[in-house]
Amino acid sequence: MFRKTFTVTSSQEGDIIDLTMEVKNAIRESGVRNGVAHLFVQHSTAALTTIEFEPGVLADLKRSLSVFAPDNVPYAHDSRWGDGNGRSHVKAALVGPSLMVPVSSGALACGTWQQIVLLELDVNAGRERTVCCTVMGE
Amino acid sequence: MFRKTFTVTSSQEGDIIDLTMEVKNAIRESGVRNGVAHLFVQHSTAALTTIEFEPGVLADLKRSLSVFAPDNVPYAHDSRWGDGNGRSHVKAALVGPSLMVPVSSGALACGTWQQIVLLELDVNAGRERTVCCTVMGE
Amino acid sequence: MFRKTFTVTSSQEGDIIDLTMEVKNAIRESGVRNGVAHLFVQHSTAALTTIEFEPGVLADLKRSLSVFAPDNVPYAHDSRWGDGNGRSHVKAALVGPSLMVPVSSGALACGTWQQIVLLELDVNAGRERTVCCTVMGE
Repeated sequence: MFRKTFTVTSSQEGDIIDLTMEVKNAIRESGVRNGVAHLFVQHSTAALTTIEFEPGVLADLKRSLSVFAPDNVPYAHDSRWGDGNGRSHVKAALVGPSLMVPVSSGALACGTWQQIVLLELDVNAGRERTVCCTVMGE
Repeated sequence: MFRKTFTVTSSQEGDIIDLTMEVKNAIRESGVRNGVAHLFVQHSTAALTTIEFEPGVLADLKRSLSVFAPDNVPYAHDSRWGDGNGRSHVKAALVGPSLMVPVSSGALACGTWQQIVLLELDVNAGRERTVCCTVMGE
Repeated sequence: MFRKTFTVTSSQEGDIIDLTMEVKNAIRESGVRNGVAHLFVQHSTAALTTIEFEPGVLADLKRSLSVFAPDNVPYAHDSRWGDGNGRSHVKAALVGPSLMVPVSSGALACGTWQQIVLLELDVNAGRERTVCCTVMGE
């Protein structure tokens, strides 16, 4: 078992950050040949998933998340706490903070068009986000 | 590898139950210092995710899940089986039954505002829900 | 740790394919008694989740995914690349490519009404989809 924590800094709500290279590096450093890599973002207004890292589809994903949690409706979270990030929490809970990917022959075994991404969902800009990566296997 | 199964009882549709303490207890009992904890809810009308356990944002999440699977539309599942929980199945399939979190220095390594929750999505009240927790590591 | 890769072929967009038997077979072949099985679909327009494998609820899930990513809106991905599968990418990123299930006493430990499924989300028909299954435990 190999553990590596890395940090990325977002600039604004809706940022989607490609983590694929960081994950590949962690797998290489781990020395694991066959197994899995677990990724977890330790924040309640960010999430992890996979997507083709292409600007068009990233914009499409943002629009779809806004169907689920629109900008222009009141949030009970915002009424209580005044954070303004009710929609951010809701989107993060839906997509989820956890992702596990296979490792095969010492390499990340995702599809060609399947990049690992962090979704910055918070309305408050310029956040530092910590991702905990655990590589397990043989 | 350490396995612990625990049960929670919901009272109604939309209940969101904080499992963080149960997971912390399982990690402590496991003796694992560094690794991961996997959680899985063994039911098709409940789901697991993380969220800030604050009543406002829990209400916001429930509303957003209803955008996806509204109360006031007919469900093919209900037409066929008369269960009335078509929307429950759909929400559960979207959010998912599985969650994995990191364990670091013998403790749960989530963010401060990131609690582990079970979503009771079934319309039939008072359900007992079994969660299978597996702690792996060193 | 045991690794098995299997392939399924879909016939059209919206196909939902039951993988439960393949996963049970992989668990049996692995010889693992207690642990977890990780599943990962190596494509950006397919996803994995659990659901009751019943035609009504499968139709309900498809409708709900279309709320989030409708057929009749323009996608930036399609404008740029002309693939016509912008909605497919968006749905896949939301549901996610990864699923982990518990193994107990040598058997898959899901609920009775909880089947493991692959969602074929691409608009381009007849795709071969590879799922990487990793069984870990004792």
